[in-house]
Amino acid sequence: MNVDPKRTVRELKELRALTADDNGAQRVAWTDTWLKAREWFTSKLAGLPVEHHYDAAGNHWVTLRGESEKALLLGGHLDSVPNGGWLDGCLDEMAALEVLRGFAAKYNGRPPLTIRVVDWADEEGARFGRSLLGSSAFAGTHSIEADRVRTDKDGIRLEDALKRCGVSIDRFADAEREQINAAAYLELHIEQGPVLESLNLPLGVVLGTKGVERHAITFHGQEAHSGSTPMAVRRDALAAAAKLALEIRTIAGKHPDSVCTMGSVKTFPGIVTAVVGRCETTLDQRDLDAAVLARMYRDARESSERFAREEKCSVEWSRIWNIEPIQFHPKLIEFCDDAIRQVAGKSHRLPSGPLHDAAEVSRCGIPTVMMFVQSLRGISHNKIEDTKEQHLEMSVEAFARLADKTTDWILSR
Amino acid sequence: MNVDPKRTVRELKELRALTADDNGAQRVAWTDTWLKAREWFTSKLAGLPVEHHYDAAGNHWVTLRGESEKALLLGGHLDSVPNGGWLDGCLDEMAALEVLRGFAAKYNGRPPLTIRVVDWADEEGARFGRSLLGSSAFAGTHSIEADRVRTDKDGIRLEDALKRCGVSIDRFADAEREQINAAAYLELHIEQGPVLESLNLPLGVVLGTKGVERHAITFHGQEAHSGSTPMAVRRDALAAAAKLALEIRTIAGKHPDSVCTMGSVKTFPGIVTAVVGRCETTLDQRDLDAAVLARMYRDARESSERFAREEKCSVEWSRIWNIEPIQFHPKLIEFCDDAIRQVAGKSHRLPSGPLHDAAEVSRCGIPTVMMFVQSLRGISHNKIEDTKEQHLEMSVEAFARLADKTTDWILSR
Repeated sequence: MNVDPKRTVRELKELRALTADDNGAQRVAWTDTWLKAREWFTSKLAGLPVEHHYDAAGNHWVTLRGESEKALLLGGHLDSVPNGGWLDGCLDEMAALEVLRGFAAKYNGRPPLTIRVVDWADEEGARFGRSLLGSSAFAGTHSIEADRVRTDKDGIRLEDALKRCGVSIDRFADAEREQINAAAYLELHIEQGPVLESLNLPLGVVLGTKGVERHAITFHGQEAHSGSTPMAVRRDALAAAAKLALEIRTIAGKHPDSVCTMGSVKTFPGIVTAVVGRCETTLDQRDLDAAVLARMYRDARESSERFAREEKCSVEWSRIWNIEPIQFHPKLIEFCDDAIRQVAGKSHRLPSGPLHDAAEVSRCGIPTVMMFVQSLRGISHNKIEDTKEQHLEMSVEAFARLADKTTDWILSR
Repeated sequence: MNVDPKRTVRELKELRALTADDNGAQRVAWTDTWLKAREWFTSKLAGLPVEHHYDAAGNHWVTLRGESEKALLLGGHLDSVPNGGWLDGCLDEMAALEVLRGFAAKYNGRPPLTIRVVDWADEEGARFGRSLLGSSAFAGTHSIEADRVRTDKDGIRLEDALKRCGVSIDRFADAEREQINAAAYLELHIEQGPVLESLNLPLGVVLGTKGVERHAITFHGQEAHSGSTPMAVRRDALAAAAKLALEIRTIAGKHPDSVCTMGSVKTFPGIVTAVVGRCETTLDQRDLDAAVLARMYRDARESSERFAREEKCSVEWSRIWNIEPIQFHPKLIEFCDDAIRQVAGKSHRLPSGPLHDAAEVSRCGIPTVMMFVQSLRGISHNKIEDTKEQHLEMSVEAFARLADKTTDWILSR
C-alpha cells in the first residue's frame, strides 16, 4: 500500500494552527475547540468512498466497506489536555486516515476487508477526570452512574456537557454495538517517555499497557510544638511518609520495567513550628505483569505499616483507582516488530506506562497492538511535546505496513 | 512571704469563664476579648497599694513602690492564641500578682525593694505573626518599619489595630524607659512540652530559650509522567526532600537537647500521576548553644546539597527567621533550683524550646530566669492544655520563694 507520510505531517500542522494557542493545544473534549477539530477532520473525508457516524458515546467512526465484513480498526483521539501537544492522539488519528486512504487507493475503493477509523471521544479525561470515556463505552467497561455526577472546575456536570455535544449518557451502552465484526485494532502513538530516544531508535512495539494501582495513603502521628517536643517522643507523620517515599524506589527496582511514584504529599497542620501530625500522600504503581503489580502493592503496604510502627504512627490506605495490565496480541506484536524493522532497521519492545484507548479495545477481546514513535525529551501533555519529522514520516510508513500484515492475517484466519 | 495559691487557681478559672468559649481561650491581642481580660486584671488591683499604667508599646505595668528604687520584675501575658489554653501566659501573670500581694502583706505595703508586675502586650503574635511584640519594644529589639505593614487575615494593618487600643507604633521605642532600675526578671510558665511529665516532676528550672534557625528549603527536579518515566532517569524533588526529612533527625541526635523539625512539605505539580518537579519544605532548628545551632544549620545545608546531587536536583535555601540562644542568669538558676527543691523535693534543669518574653528581657542585660510547671500530655495552644491543680499550687508557692531569694540577692549586691 502507498501512503503519503508528508501529508500526515502537513495535516497535523494544519490542525495545530486551527486548535492551538500560545500555550499549546486546546482540544479539550466536549469544548468548542474540540468540536472544531472534529469538523476539520470530517472535512478531510470529502471524496473518500466512506460512510461516517458518531456512536452513542460520541466516538466518530469512518468506514470503508470491503469484500469481507471483518473489520480492521485503526484509532486515535483528537482531544487533548489543556495546553497540550500537537501529536498526542492526533498523530494516531491522521496516520489512521492516511492508511485508510492507502487501502482505498490500492483496492479502488473496495478492499478485501472493511477498514474503520475511529476518533475516540474524551481519551484524556482532562475536563471531568474520567479518561478513556469513549473507548470504555465501546468496550462495555463504562461506569455511567459514577460518571454522571462528575463536574468540571466550573461545576458543569459531565452529563450536561455531553448533551450539548449530542451525546446522551443514558445511551452509552449502545456504543458496544460498534464491536461487531471487529477483527483487530491498531494504534500509533508518540511514546511520551524517554526510552526510544535514549536508545536512539525511532520506533518501538508496545507490549501492552501497564496495570495501575493508585492509592491515597495517610499517616497519622501527633501534632506537637517544634520547640518543646524532644526528638525521642515525637510521632512524626512526615518521617513515616518520607521513609515510604524512598522505599517505593527499592520496591520498583526489584522488577525491570516497574514504576512507583509518590506524586503528592500534604502536611498538616503544615506550619514551620509544628511536628507533622498528619501526612497525606498518593502512590501510583505500574507494571505490565499482574503478579508483579500485586507484589509491589503488597510490598508498599507492608512497608508503610512497618514505617508507621517505627514512627509510633498509624497508616490508612484508600484505593483511588486501579486497572489490570493489558497484554497486547502476540501475533500482532510480531507483525509490528517486522514492520518497524522494514522501515527503521531495528525495533524495540517496551510496555506503555500511560494508558491508551487500545487498552480498552484489547480488554474486550479484540486482537490489539500499538506502535510507538520516539518523543523528544520524553515530554508530553505540554506545548513543547515534539517528535522529529523524519520519525513521524517513518511511523506512518511502518504503521501502513503493520496494517497490510494484519489484513493478510485476518483474511487467513 | 505568704501566698494563697488556691486563689491563683480560682482567678485563672474566673478568667477562663470570662474569655473562653467552647473552642478554648480567645484572648487574642488587640481584640475586645483581650481588652476585657486586661480590664478584669485591673479590677484585681483594687485595694492594693500600687500604681499602674500602660507603656508606649501597650505593656501593662503594676508597681508596688519599695524602700529601694531597685525593682524586681515579675511578668506574664494575658493574650492567647485563638482557641488557646487557660494557663499559657495567664498562670505567669496571676502568680506574679499573687507574689506582689505577698510582698505587700509581708512588708505592710512598703517592701525593701520595688516590685513590678508586667502584662506584656502580644506575646503570641497570633493575629499579625509578630510574637514578643511588647517585650521586644521594652528590650529595644523592636522592628517598627517591618511590623507597621503587617496585616491580619482580614487585611487590617497592625498599626491601625494598635491605634484602636491606644498604642501608637511610632512611640514604641519609649517603652525602653521601663528598663530603669530593673534588677531582675522572673517568669513562671507551663512547660508546653512533655519533659517534666515524663520525669514525673512538677517543676523545673529553665536554663534559657533555645536559639532558632528557620529556613525555607526548595528542591528543584523535573516534573515527569508517572507512567512513562523509568525510575532510573527521574529527577524526583520529593526523594531529595524525603532524605532531608529523615537526616535532620540524625543531625539533631548528635546533641542532647537539639530539635530539628520539617513542619511543611509542598509538592508541585502535586498530582498522583506526576513525578514531583518541585518540593518546598520548611526547617526549624533549635538549640541552647549557639555553636551547636550553627553546626546543625551547616549540617542540614550540606546534607541537602548532597541529597540534591544524588537525585540530580538542585536546592535553594532562604532564611525565614532566626534568633540567637538566650542563656538565663546562673545565680537566678540556682535560686530557682533551690526554691523548687524546697517545695517539690526534686528539681530538673531544662532549656525552653518555645520563646518567651523572658528571652527579650534577658537580651537587654537584666538578670532573668524562668520556672516551668508540668504540662499534661505536653499539649499547649489548644483548649485541652492543662496542668494538675496541685502542680499549679506548688508552682505559685515555689515562684514566691524564688522571688524572696532574688530579693535578698538584689539587696545584697
